[in-house]
Amino acid sequence: MQQTEQYDNSNTLDDRIASRLKRDRMGLVAAVIQQYDTLEVLMVGYMNDEALRRTLTSGRVTFWSRSRQEYWRKGDTSGHVQYVKSVSLDCDGDALLVQVDQVGAACHTGSRSCFDAGGPIPAVVGRRAEGRPTDGREVR
Amino acid sequence: MQQTEQYDNSNTLDDRIASRLKRDRMGLVAAVIQQYDTLEVLMVGYMNDEALRRTLTSGRVTFWSRSRQEYWRKGDTSGHVQYVKSVSLDCDGDALLVQVDQVGAACHTGSRSCFDAGGPIPAVVGRRAEGRPTDGREVR
Repeated sequence: MQQTEQYDNSNTLDDRIASRLKRDRMGLVAAVIQQYDTLEVLMVGYMNDEALRRTLTSGRVTFWSRSRQEYWRKGDTSGHVQYVKSVSLDCDGDALLVQVDQVGAACHTGSRSCFDAGGPIPAVVGRRAEGRPTDGREVR
Repeated sequence: MQQTEQYDNSNTLDDRIASRLKRDRMGLVAAVIQQYDTLEVLMVGYMNDEALRRTLTSGRVTFWSRSRQEYWRKGDTSGHVQYVKSVSLDCDGDALLVQVDQVGAACHTGSRSCFDAGGPIPAVVGRRAEGRPTDGREVR
């Protein structure tokens, strides 16, 4: 896809984007929200075609709220606006990565990130076998 | 939750973790996979309770493949293993952030990240209004 071509998202999501989306049963794709400079992952939300269209055209992130069943432009109530820096679609069209400039807390709990709020779960840490190339294949 | 307490994930996912999960209709939560040192977002996969249990206990990331309807321990076929560094649950229990050490390409296309493979979608960039505090509320 050429990045320089013009898309028409003025009324509906351009079909060249819409045709690449692999939506779930509710018509949604996951959107990972990442702070553009620190690269911290702030939250995961969901978008339907119209939420993505609004996100692409307004400079502000809009989700579809699964719990409230309505559009949710982040920050309209809380003031914790997400300014869009870039949007990427993944290889199979079912996830978006949205880099943003997050004003204040991303999480409704007041934490910067929703993952800070939920917190770590103890996990066994894995390691590469010694002497294996760091960018090669791991054979076992 | 105390991080030092012992969880018993030996046969099934410890109930203190399982009780916090808010699963979708298919019993899954989204898992954002992030390279632990560069912080790049590599991919999004899905986990059911057993996939999360295996991820927490083995040092290797295991997903539930929605397309193949089977467990998928990342790298078993491709060699592109994901070693677990940390796992966090979000505030409302429907998303995981898994920091990993990714061997080779995360994406089946051979790209390091699935979002590199799909690529950017042109978007209007948003900016904070001048003179507004960088961590304060944006009112409009």
